[in-house]
Amino acid sequence: MNDKKLLTRVRTYATSANLGPGFDCAGIALNIYNECAVYSNGSKNNRISLQGKNVQGIAEDDSNLIFKTIRKVLEEKYGAIYEKYEKPVEIICNINVPVERGLGSSSTAVVAGLLIANEIYDLNLSNTELLNIGLDIEPHPDNIAPCIAGGLVISYKTKSGNYSFEKIKIKKNFKVLLMIPGFKVNTCEARKLIPELVPKKDAISNIANFAMLINCLKEGNIENAFNFIQDQMHQPFRKDIYADSFNLVEELNDCYKIPAAISGSGPTVLAFIPNNKLTVFMSGHLDGLKNKYQNFQFKLTTVRNEGSYCFL
Amino acid sequence: MNDKKLLTRVRTYATSANLGPGFDCAGIALNIYNECAVYSNGSKNNRISLQGKNVQGIAEDDSNLIFKTIRKVLEEKYGAIYEKYEKPVEIICNINVPVERGLGSSSTAVVAGLLIANEIYDLNLSNTELLNIGLDIEPHPDNIAPCIAGGLVISYKTKSGNYSFEKIKIKKNFKVLLMIPGFKVNTCEARKLIPELVPKKDAISNIANFAMLINCLKEGNIENAFNFIQDQMHQPFRKDIYADSFNLVEELNDCYKIPAAISGSGPTVLAFIPNNKLTVFMSGHLDGLKNKYQNFQFKLTTVRNEGSYCFL
Repeated sequence: MNDKKLLTRVRTYATSANLGPGFDCAGIALNIYNECAVYSNGSKNNRISLQGKNVQGIAEDDSNLIFKTIRKVLEEKYGAIYEKYEKPVEIICNINVPVERGLGSSSTAVVAGLLIANEIYDLNLSNTELLNIGLDIEPHPDNIAPCIAGGLVISYKTKSGNYSFEKIKIKKNFKVLLMIPGFKVNTCEARKLIPELVPKKDAISNIANFAMLINCLKEGNIENAFNFIQDQMHQPFRKDIYADSFNLVEELNDCYKIPAAISGSGPTVLAFIPNNKLTVFMSGHLDGLKNKYQNFQFKLTTVRNEGSYCFL
Repeated sequence: MNDKKLLTRVRTYATSANLGPGFDCAGIALNIYNECAVYSNGSKNNRISLQGKNVQGIAEDDSNLIFKTIRKVLEEKYGAIYEKYEKPVEIICNINVPVERGLGSSSTAVVAGLLIANEIYDLNLSNTELLNIGLDIEPHPDNIAPCIAGGLVISYKTKSGNYSFEKIKIKKNFKVLLMIPGFKVNTCEARKLIPELVPKKDAISNIANFAMLINCLKEGNIENAFNFIQDQMHQPFRKDIYADSFNLVEELNDCYKIPAAISGSGPTVLAFIPNNKLTVFMSGHLDGLKNKYQNFQFKLTTVRNEGSYCFL
C-alpha cells in the first residue's frame, strides 16, 4: 500500500435520457454522482473496490466498464500497441447512482473511464472526441453526452457519421423529482421492444412535442410542459415492463399537470416540479403518491449544470 | 353595382412549412400577402375576381376555396341549416402569393375564408377554433396555423384529437430568401411520395435536428442552423420532383453554410440569411447562384410576425 499515489479523483453524474419525446437524442444531468479515487498501483493488475449501497451487479474486476473504457481510449490513441502504454491503477469507487434504473449508471462508468484516461495519460481529448470513443463502449449518446457536459444536451449525428452534441440553455425554475421503483430494467432488453419502423404520424408527434418541450424549458414555462412531454416512440412499447411507472407518468401528467416521463429505458420516473408549485406538490400530493406507489423511492434533486470532472 | 357595400378587407400571408426537419408540424409566416376586399352582393350568387400575375389555376367561381371555407365555418356554427344564414358576397382578390410553389397559397385562401366568415357573421371564433375548421378543408396545420398566427408556429394534436398550435418566440436577426422555380408541385401528389413508416433512426434525426433548429432560432444563432435544418423524412423522397431545388438546398447548406430547406412540398427553396452575412451573400454569391439556377426567381423577404387580419 505504500507505493499508492493518488492520481486523480473523478465525479460523474446521473443522467436521465429521452425526456419523453426526445427519444435517443436528449438527456439531462442530475445532481447525483459517483465518485472514484484513482491510485497508481504497484501490481500488474487493475483493481477496483466499490462502496455504497448501489453496487450490486457492478463488475469488481478488470471487466469493469471503467477499465474497459480506459483501454478503449488508449487503443484509439495508440492503436494495437496500446497495451505498452497501460498503467495499472487501483480505483476506489463510491456509488450513489442506482444501477439499471434508467439513470445512466453505466454512462457514469464510461465517462469516468474517459475522463480518467484523458487526465492520467495527459491526452487533451475534446468532449466530442471523448463522446465518440465512449460510444464504442456504449452505443447511445443520450446519457454519455449530458454526463460529459452537464445540463440538458441534445446529441446528433453529423454528416461525417460521428456524433456531436449541444448543451441547450434552459431556465432552472424547477426541481427534478425521481421516482425509483425497486426493480431493474435491462437497457438492451428494453431496446428490443421498440420496432425499427415508426408510423409517420408518431414521428411527427415526437418532432413537434420535443421542440415544444425544449421551448417550454427555454422559456421557463414548466407549467405547460406536461402537454408536450408526451411520447409515441418508446414508452408505449415498453409499457408492460414498467406498468406502474407508466401509470405514474400518466397520473402526474394528466391529474397533477406535472410534466413526467420514463427516465431512459426505465423503470425510474422523472418529473419536473416548477418551483412555484413545489410546496403545494410536496406537502399536498406527495404522501398520496407515496402511499399509492409503495414500491417506489421518491428522491428530489436538481439539474446538474456543469459536466463530470476530474479533481485532486 | 350601387348596392355594393364594403364589408371587410383581409390580408393573408404566405407561409413556408416544414423548415427542413419540422415535417408536418412547423411553419413560418412571410411578408408576402394576398388581399381581398369583400363586398355585400345584391345577387344570389357569390362572385370572385382575381387580380395579379399569380392567378393561374385559382377557381373564379363558387368553388373557390374562400367560399368553400366560409360555408364550412357556417356549417360548423349552424349545422345542416347553415344555408339559411349564408349571405352572398363579391370578393376582389389581389394575389401576390405564388400558386402551388410550396408557399401556402391555398392556406391564404382558407384563412381568408375563416377570417371573413368570423368577421362578417360576427362569430367570435378563437384562432384555435378557426384552425380546426380550416383543417376540414385543408388537412395539414403547418401552413394554416402560421398563416393565422404569424411568426414561427408549431402545431400539434392534443389528447382530445383536435389540433392546437404555439407561436415560438425567435430572434429576428435574419432575412428570408425565397428561390421560386418556374414550375409547380401539387401538394397531394407530393404527399403520396412519402412512405407511411419511417426508419427509427430517421425519426430520431428529425427530432434532434428540429429541436436544435428551434434552439438556434431562439438564440439568434443562425450561423449554426445549417447543421440542423437537415431532414430525413420528406425531402429525400421528393428529390426527383424538384431535383434543382434539392441541389440548391444542398449547395446553400454545404457550400455557403446558409440554412436552407424545401418550402412545404416544394419546389420553392427557403433560406435564412443572417443579417451579418447579408451584404456579403447578396453582393458576393447571389449573382453566381442566379446564373446557375436560371429557372428560379430570387425574392428577399422577412418573417411576418403578426397574423393575418381583417380591416376596413
